[in-house]
Order: sequence, then C-alpha cells, then structure tokens
Amino acid sequence: MEYKYAGRARFAAPTLIRMANDYAAGNPDFIFFSVGNPSVETFPAKELRELADEVLAENYKSCLPYGENPGYPPLRALVRERLVKRGILKADDDNDLFITPGSGHGMDLMTMTFCDPGDEIIVEEFTYTGIIGSARCMGASLVGVKMEDDGMDMADLEEKLRTHPRAKFIYLVPTFSNPTGITWSMEKRKALYALSQKYDIMIYEDDPYGELRYSGTPVDTVKSLDTDGRVVYAGSFSKILSAGLRVGYVVCDKSLYTKLSCAAGNVVVASNLAQMVMAKYMERYDLDAHIQKACDYYGKKARAMKEALDRCLPEGWVRTDPEGGLFMWVTAPEEVDAMEMWKELLSMGVGLAPSASFAPDRDNPGHAFRLNYSRPSIEDIEKGCEIFGQVSSKYTK
Amino acid sequence: MEYKYAGRARFAAPTLIRMANDYAAGNPDFIFFSVGNPSVETFPAKELRELADEVLAENYKSCLPYGENPGYPPLRALVRERLVKRGILKADDDNDLFITPGSGHGMDLMTMTFCDPGDEIIVEEFTYTGIIGSARCMGASLVGVKMEDDGMDMADLEEKLRTHPRAKFIYLVPTFSNPTGITWSMEKRKALYALSQKYDIMIYEDDPYGELRYSGTPVDTVKSLDTDGRVVYAGSFSKILSAGLRVGYVVCDKSLYTKLSCAAGNVVVASNLAQMVMAKYMERYDLDAHIQKACDYYGKKARAMKEALDRCLPEGWVRTDPEGGLFMWVTAPEEVDAMEMWKELLSMGVGLAPSASFAPDRDNPGHAFRLNYSRPSIEDIEKGCEIFGQVSSKYTK
Repeated sequence: MEYKYAGRARFAAPTLIRMANDYAAGNPDFIFFSVGNPSVETFPAKELRELADEVLAENYKSCLPYGENPGYPPLRALVRERLVKRGILKADDDNDLFITPGSGHGMDLMTMTFCDPGDEIIVEEFTYTGIIGSARCMGASLVGVKMEDDGMDMADLEEKLRTHPRAKFIYLVPTFSNPTGITWSMEKRKALYALSQKYDIMIYEDDPYGELRYSGTPVDTVKSLDTDGRVVYAGSFSKILSAGLRVGYVVCDKSLYTKLSCAAGNVVVASNLAQMVMAKYMERYDLDAHIQKACDYYGKKARAMKEALDRCLPEGWVRTDPEGGLFMWVTAPEEVDAMEMWKELLSMGVGLAPSASFAPDRDNPGHAFRLNYSRPSIEDIEKGCEIFGQVSSKYTK
Repeated sequence: MEYKYAGRARFAAPTLIRMANDYAAGNPDFIFFSVGNPSVETFPAKELRELADEVLAENYKSCLPYGENPGYPPLRALVRERLVKRGILKADDDNDLFITPGSGHGMDLMTMTFCDPGDEIIVEEFTYTGIIGSARCMGASLVGVKMEDDGMDMADLEEKLRTHPRAKFIYLVPTFSNPTGITWSMEKRKALYALSQKYDIMIYEDDPYGELRYSGTPVDTVKSLDTDGRVVYAGSFSKILSAGLRVGYVVCDKSLYTKLSCAAGNVVVASNLAQMVMAKYMERYDLDAHIQKACDYYGKKARAMKEALDRCLPEGWVRTDPEGGLFMWVTAPEEVDAMEMWKELLSMGVGLAPSASFAPDRDNPGHAFRLNYSRPSIEDIEKGCEIFGQVSSKYTK
C-alpha cells in the first residue's frame, strides 16, 4: 500500500551521524570521531553486576512488575540529594524530580508540553540533534543565536527574543556543549536568566556532561539561578555509569510535573532494574571518585586530540578548547565545502559529524565538524587527526 | 511564572486509574481490580537473576554503552523466529522488527508517523487508555465503533470508514482486549482486513495479551492475514517475563521502519541489559512452558472472578467471558451512574476502572467497569466481587 504519512514524518530520516555508522560497518579500522558515545572503559561493570544480582535476589518483587510513574523513589531521593550537594537545588527546594529513560526523552516531553505547531524554540548557533528532531516532531521551528567562546552573543539573543514572540523556551547545553564543547561563563548565565525574565520565557538546561570536568573551574548551573520555576533541568547517568541502562532525570517546578509527565501519549519509563542498580550504586560506592577516574580518562584523550589538531590543522582552522565533556568543534575557513570533505573522510575511514547535523536552519549548514574523543584510542586519535589535517589542507585555499 | 502550555497539554491530566491508585495509598487491604498489571508471581525471578549476572559478566562491553537503534540483534532474531512459529509472520517475510521500551511506545510512534492535527483514528467502542493519550498528544481524534461479543459491528465499521476520510488507521487489541477481554472471531478479522483494503486504511494490532490464553481455541492474528504491509503489529514481554524491565517490539513493513523509528524527536530505546536478558531467556528456557504456567495461574483467577460475579451481580448486569488475558468487563443497566458508584466503591476499598477511562468520546462515558483479576488473591477476588455486588444492587432500580 502507499502510506499517507503525517507532515512531521515526511522529513523524518536517519541523521547524518547514523548514516556514517552504516558507512563504517565492516571496517574494523574505522576511526569514530562521529559518535557522541562515552567509553565503556569508564563504566563500573563489576560493581553494576554485583548490584544487579542483589536487586534481582532481594527486590525482584518490586523490580519485575510495573514501577512507579515518576520513577523509583529511593533513586529520586538520592539524585535530589546529589543535586543539592552540587548546588543545583536548594535543600528546602520543592522542585519535582522524575526519572526518564535517558535525558533525551525529557526534551521530547518539554516540546510536547509547550510547543503548538508554529511555535519556536531558541537554540545555540549549532545545537544538539535531539532538539532538532523534537521540534520537527511537534511542528515547532528553531531559532539559532550567534555563539561566542563563552556562550550566546547576548545582543543577538535579545534581538531574537524581541522578534520571536512565539518562542516557548530556550534550549541549551551550557556546560561542555554538544556539539561544540563550549561552556558558558557565569556572567553570560546570569545575563541569560535576566533576559529570560524580561521576555518571560522558559529555559531547558540539558546537562548530561556537566560532571565530566577534567580541567578548569566549575561554573554553577543556570538552574541554580532559578527563582521563578522558569528552568527545567535534565541530567543523566548515561555518561557516568552506563548509557545502555537508560536512566536520566528531569527537575522542574512542582506545578509543572503533571503536565510534563502526562503530555506524552504513553508514559515511557526507565527499566526498574536499571533504576534500582543506579540507586544501589549511589548508596554503596563513591560516585565522585568514580567520576574523577572517568575525567582523568577523558582528559588524557582530549589533550591528545588538542595536541594532534594543533599540529595537523592548516592555518585558518579553529578549534574550541573544552574543559570537559566529550566533544571538540573545529571550524573550517568559509570556502571549505564541509559536506564534500566529510564524505571524503568517510571513504578514508575517518568519521566526523558535519555541522549540517547540528544546524537549526537547514539552509545554513555551516562549515565545521564535531569531533568526539571519547571512543577512539589515543593512537587512533593521533592517526585520525593526521588524516583530517591532510584532507583539510587539500580543501583549504 | 505563568506557564503557556501547548494546546495538547491543556487537558493532560492523570488518568482515573492513576487517581484510584492515589486513593488506595495507605490502605493495605485495598482490593485492586483497577490496574492492568500482570502478577509478579508469574515472572521467572530466579532465571532472570542468573541471566542478568551472565550478561554483566560476559557481555558488559556491549550492554553498558548505547545499543543499536532497532534493538539488540539476537533478541530481534529470536522474537522474529517465535512470531514465525506462532504463524504471525512467514519464514520468508521481509517485515522489519524493532525493539521498544514496552509496546505503548509503539503506538506513540504510529500516531506520530501518521496523524496530523485533525486526523482520526478508528477504535473499539471502549479502547485502551494509551491510544487515547497518544491521539490527544498528536491532535488526532478518535472514532469509536460499536462492539459485539466477537469484535466490531462490521456495518458500523464500514459506516465510520465511509464517513471519516481523515481516519489514518484502525487501532485494536483483537485478542483479550484491554479493557473488555473480548476476542475477535476469525470471521470478523477477515472482514476487518477486507474493509481496510476497500477503504485503503492501515491497522495497528496491539497484542500484549495474545499468548495468555487459558481456555478455548487460539485465533490467528490480523497480522497473519496481511498481504499489503497494512498491519503494524506490536507485542511485549511485559505480561509474560517482566513488566518492569520494559521490553516490547513492533513489526512493520520494511519500507515503514525508517519513518516509524525517526518520527519521534528522540529515539527512546529499551535498556540493553533487559534486552539481553530476554534474549538469553528465550535461548535457554522453554518460554512456552513458562507461559503455560502463567496461563494456569490467570485461568484460576478468571474462573474465580466469573463465579463470584455470576453469584453477586444483580439482574440486568452483564459481564464478558474472556478466554485469556487479564481483564473482564461488566456493563451496568443504563440507569446506573457509574462514576458515582465508582467513587463509592473506592471509599469502600475496592478499585475498579470506570468505562469513562476508556471512552473515545468524552461525552459518552458509558456505564461499565473494567475488572482486572490478575493482581488480587482469589480470596480478595471473592471479597471484592461481593462488595461490588452489594453496591451494584443499591444502584440498580
């Protein structure tokens, strides 16, 4: 039969990043700078095994049936406690905290709850693919704001807020951003919050990487500035304990929880087993010490990539200088055809994520690349950057 | 701040069923006929524990990172094999099969892929709450079709198909339906498929209960009749191995998979650990033998409920006669105020699900109740039905 798709599905297609994965299939030497995955080496497999065994021995009567809708209560309490310790929530705070199967689902709930077709979402100049899909799915469009090294260009943000009255929220990954690796300064976070008050708009702070700082000084979250219930904050265990177990969380004003959790058709919840294992891990082990080890691991790889890029890239190419997270962003001179170069690199066994994947405006795909340093070995990072450098030189006038 | 919700969220609220749960909190003697949960007694806890331990010992390198988007390949292959054995798919079939975090998510993907605001979905006279939420979320409306003991009234179905050209698909749970427990006859399944061809409409066959038959003769699925790629079929492990691990699956024509899997903003996937445990269970144990035990367990409870209702209900009250699944449906005489009676029963410690929860049309809430026999003990089934009978008599003229 001939299918009659809805408008939103007509453009639904695999991302360029997923296409690159297909391209790499069958090449064991392929160097993956393209995927945003944390490294399995940083996940505590032995401990998770021990804890899963305990859960299924002792708690199977609550683990195997349906769980509670906002999530496993002890896990919710432990995450809240940790957010208080990290200064993100106040001890007497009455925000709600609920568990999701990864933080990506949180942004779908946000978009479903707030965006009618034709509404808008303000985003960074290049932004996470998940919010691009989420907006498309709800018929919302994206408005990109110019970026500087320490966050959005505030004049441009204000201009966009002023001229886009249908903008429902500002989406951002202010710490070790996906895709750029940029971290917003405290000054810009305060200015952002002030503007969000002036134009009475919400903020969705997506923070899956915030704990993975390997250098520099921590910056407080935007949520920590929130006095109005204006900021919805999302975090995740995917980058620190396991991505495959699918556990994230969303923090929002108490009055918002029912809408956020009921806006979707069916409540999609995380596996009870995964939630219970996460809770036991937080109770029994030192999560901070574990994260420190992951940061040491990523820090070494990031340094290796910075050095290799600084050595290999031709003049006129610029990279960001992340202090944590999983990504680096390399901008080519304007004349470079990033898509052509991306394809050539794929054929040479090096996968990058082209800026087109992260562009809020399809007509402005940019001329930059996201490089992920978490998955390849240091040897592959050096080798891949060398090939990247050679091809860059060829494409640079 | 004052939140500016999207249209779809304005009516988003907890279901009556969820409200009943809140009501019951703190009453350990509360009798839950209201929730559709399978019983934890039917889940193989010991085996799942053993398998989880093995997965985390041997497969942690593929279990803990992100998994593959359509799901864990060995699990997909095992489920396909089982569907072929059950006659649902053909051996040389080229339908795609992908894993979801429960079968509810499948219907969200279906609605996202096919329904523009203003489109319609054809459903049974009373239907599963999930499709009601899913339709609301996408701005689609529901069109209910009159039901008989063996499926829809075919004349009414044709009338609805003829007069609702914006209907995108027919949603049904044709085997041990939620909420009614009704199973469609083979004759009606064939007539349904013929009409779907005549009016060129798709069918979403939701089949989470189909394997839980405790009496009577199996009826082939609608999917087994599908020659056009018109039927999307959804199944689940939630009723047979574990609800809390969140693993379901969707089968669809190969050409549909990309749209169905990309229509949502973010791909919500099942926990790798849960998927790997399910796969190992299917490899190592006899799933049919396990399901047989669950059927024996539910069959006893269903018989106890049937006997108790036949003994306790006053004249004029009618119940369905399910041969499997988890639900029975009791229709009161027209004069009975079902919502008032529902509230009175709650206050007496008996939770039912009122037909209003399952009504496609808010203005026609009906005067019936869904009773779930899987969770309460046989003693509680008898006690609860006795109270239900007393209150019914009071409300019957």
